Amino acid sequence: MLRTAHQHTANNRTAGTAPLRRPGAVATRNSEFHSGYSNVQHPLCNIDENTRLHRYEDQIKKAFAAIVPTLKQISAIQHEPDFEFKAQQIARHGLGFDLPKNILADAWVEQLDMRRLFAWCMFYTYRRFCDEFFTARPEGSNANDFDAFLQACGFHTLDISPCADGRLAHLVRYVLRLPPRAVRRKSYAGAMFDVEDSIQKWVEIELQRFREGQPNTADAATRYLKVAAYHFSSVDPKHQGCAAHGSDTRKAAQAALERLVNFRQAIENSFCCGASIDLLLIGVDTDTDSIRVHVPDANGEMNLDRYLDTQDIYVETNNLGISDARREIGTAIQACSSDVTAGMTQFIARLIENNLSQIDYVLNHHGEHYPDIGHAERFIGAGVGFEDIQLRNLMYFAYLDTVEEGAADMDVGIRIFKGLNVTHGLPIPVVVRFDYHGRVPGARERARQRCGRVAQALTERYADLCNQNLLHVLQVARDCDSNKPIEIFACSVDAIDAGVH
Amino acid sequence: MLRTAHQHTANNRTAGTAPLRRPGAVATRNSEFHSGYSNVQHPLCNIDENTRLHRYEDQIKKAFAAIVPTLKQISAIQHEPDFEFKAQQIARHGLGFDLPKNILADAWVEQLDMRRLFAWCMFYTYRRFCDEFFTARPEGSNANDFDAFLQACGFHTLDISPCADGRLAHLVRYVLRLPPRAVRRKSYAGAMFDVEDSIQKWVEIELQRFREGQPNTADAATRYLKVAAYHFSSVDPKHQGCAAHGSDTRKAAQAALERLVNFRQAIENSFCCGASIDLLLIGVDTDTDSIRVHVPDANGEMNLDRYLDTQDIYVETNNLGISDARREIGTAIQACSSDVTAGMTQFIARLIENNLSQIDYVLNHHGEHYPDIGHAERFIGAGVGFEDIQLRNLMYFAYLDTVEEGAADMDVGIRIFKGLNVTHGLPIPVVVRFDYHGRVPGARERARQRCGRVAQALTERYADLCNQNLLHVLQVARDCDSNKPIEIFACSVDAIDAGVH
Repeated sequence: MLRTAHQHTANNRTAGTAPLRRPGAVATRNSEFHSGYSNVQHPLCNIDENTRLHRYEDQIKKAFAAIVPTLKQISAIQHEPDFEFKAQQIARHGLGFDLPKNILADAWVEQLDMRRLFAWCMFYTYRRFCDEFFTARPEGSNANDFDAFLQACGFHTLDISPCADGRLAHLVRYVLRLPPRAVRRKSYAGAMFDVEDSIQKWVEIELQRFREGQPNTADAATRYLKVAAYHFSSVDPKHQGCAAHGSDTRKAAQAALERLVNFRQAIENSFCCGASIDLLLIGVDTDTDSIRVHVPDANGEMNLDRYLDTQDIYVETNNLGISDARREIGTAIQACSSDVTAGMTQFIARLIENNLSQIDYVLNHHGEHYPDIGHAERFIGAGVGFEDIQLRNLMYFAYLDTVEEGAADMDVGIRIFKGLNVTHGLPIPVVVRFDYHGRVPGARERARQRCGRVAQALTERYADLCNQNLLHVLQVARDCDSNKPIEIFACSVDAIDAGVH
Repeated sequence: MLRTAHQHTANNRTAGTAPLRRPGAVATRNSEFHSGYSNVQHPLCNIDENTRLHRYEDQIKKAFAAIVPTLKQISAIQHEPDFEFKAQQIARHGLGFDLPKNILADAWVEQLDMRRLFAWCMFYTYRRFCDEFFTARPEGSNANDFDAFLQACGFHTLDISPCADGRLAHLVRYVLRLPPRAVRRKSYAGAMFDVEDSIQKWVEIELQRFREGQPNTADAATRYLKVAAYHFSSVDPKHQGCAAHGSDTRKAAQAALERLVNFRQAIENSFCCGASIDLLLIGVDTDTDSIRVHVPDANGEMNLDRYLDTQDIYVETNNLGISDARREIGTAIQACSSDVTAGMTQFIARLIENNLSQIDYVLNHHGEHYPDIGHAERFIGAGVGFEDIQLRNLMYFAYLDTVEEGAADMDVGIRIFKGLNVTHGLPIPVVVRFDYHGRVPGARERARQRCGRVAQALTERYADLCNQNLLHVLQVARDCDSNKPIEIFACSVDAIDAGVH
């Protein structure tokens, strides 16, 4: 029998402090993959997709990683004759693009303005990779197929709220292997999503079903599925867990579960005729990308201590054939919650199977856990949009309309970047972005105004950083109703489209 | 034939500067009502309602108006022996309530803190009148009857956006004589309503029709009617018009019309299956409460120069019998736009007839125009709610979620109150209010937090005023799902419930 169904009591487990990985399981992995993690492979792993996803991640991560060493090289020669020419050569070789002439040209006066140059390179790299995303659409899985699968499981919409932490930014595309276009993702610090915002989305979707039969007609017996994803660190649980909940895993899980239940209650109280939604709570180990799934019972209720851990499942199905492994996953779900509905079972089984590929991905490319178990984001994203950001530890995401409402989330991000950048004398790059619907008259102009307003509010809130050239803001937006890339509205360093090529 | 259909061309009229009242009409009114305005009466006037509405307005206006003279009396005796006792006697006599003991008790140290006392009295009076509103519900007209009438005209929802100007706060209940509960009112400076917010409301209403058959079923051939109300001053058009549009009447009308058309376009572009809405533009003369109705054609199109003026209609129907007067109104609407739909005609006829009572109201109680043609608001209301404020020139209303987004509207309000209060050394009272749905779990707590956030943002934005004791904030909210009165969360002067009775 599988030992994957955790049923802890308060007695045998101390929340947030006990090692979250069963010692047996760790031993198996350690002995199996101790050296040269490059050729492990779970029978359910999607090898082709792992290769494709790794190529994409590697390329982009390398582009951002090249910025500091390249600028170091350039810094070293800033007072040499022919500096500007040599600097551009180094930039072209190291980064693949030219630097803005005016910043280089002013270097002789005192010294090269490295903070501006650094922010410029970050923004320019973001822009390049973003343009590529919307041209190439490297999204993999087919959104239509997924919609059909989702409906077969009894759901017409999948709405996921992970934590704003950059170590969960790849949750949809990598950890769960879902098509980003078919999933609503709104990130909040501590996964503390906005209930009113979610109600509004529910209303929109229901109307679409009634009026347009999209994604299915209103009489289909499917529901809106809201998922909240908390997170924890198996390697350093006391320090690298969720900052919003003081790295207390149980507190993070509890808070996310409460928010989910509140959302369901709100729908049931606000709308008649048996309106309700389905809920799912998952936990993500940001060190290994394995997940915990809190399997609901027949009434949709979940329990903090009743969950499946995909790391256990990985180990326990690793030596089976494909169909046996799948059967075992089904058995594990039933063992965790004997009366879970058939649709939810099917959905969870898919999530678990998908996640096994990601466990393989981490094992093969990084070993037992990621080297960067802590924060290593490159920039902060603030606003609405960023569907192109599906990579781990690249961007800290504060989903907000105003700094006034999103101040707590922004403050967490700024604190993280003070550690990452400011202590090294480097500025914090913030991309302010508000995607809009171009078919709504005036929407582009309002997005532009909102960008300006938020940028201004950031400048006021973090005036000390701005005054020291330690915070830079790029303002962008994208028309969701078109296939066009992002548009640049403004930038606190030199215009990102100017001065190059 | 009636001469009420205005069809101006650019040649015979200079926007915003020409007298907006036809000289003939003015002469008629002047000669008719030159002295002792107390017994004029239009045949279509609802005398009983005028009496009821005046009693209500008078009582509340007097309560606010009593504050300054009463405090003056108290100020004069502040260094007398037995001051506290005498002050309470004066307060009870002049205001009907006791003053907070601690403010009075500290007077001997230096002098009476009149700014705090003034703010306290304003907030306390607001609270009293607000409690009374939700207990007595002095709303008059029956909301259900009006819903039925609205649907008979082809509309299932009436959504009005007037200007935030306090001289339009009585638009629904007084100027148009509609039941506030049956009308959505969201005020914005210059009537520049938020298109996205309106789309969201449209979506909510449509879903309600589909799911609950409320206010009618989705297959009923009715539409959402959005009304924008700009305003102007017939007495002093260049100075007492809409501040947001520089007292330029044509600009104000043009901007409101554009916003309406954008909203319709947004609905048509964003939703399939022939989704659309109906529009109506009206202008309000804040000196006489007469209105201009820009009668739409068969396609719902309106023209800035094609409108009916109720002041003209008043004069031209004043000597007719009831049924003749009603027939003439119908004729005037047809003359203004020959192919206007029957439903819209019926609706506009009602608005016009209702407004004739209000013209009588102003004539009888104030004469040819209000004595306070300029701003004379008593406090600023910021947030969401305030359905109890249906009185003219009592509150400047900034509908907002955050100061960050609503800064422009707030700034206009603060500017007005610098003139009204600060120049006399009196503080600006601001009521921050966020009504919420108690059936949504956590909504009350979020309303409380939002109140605190907005109050904090106001304190930061207007720090100079706050530091001088010249801006005070009361934080309140009301559960829309209950019949309870407002709840006080916090106040920058002494607690409003403490120290009295």
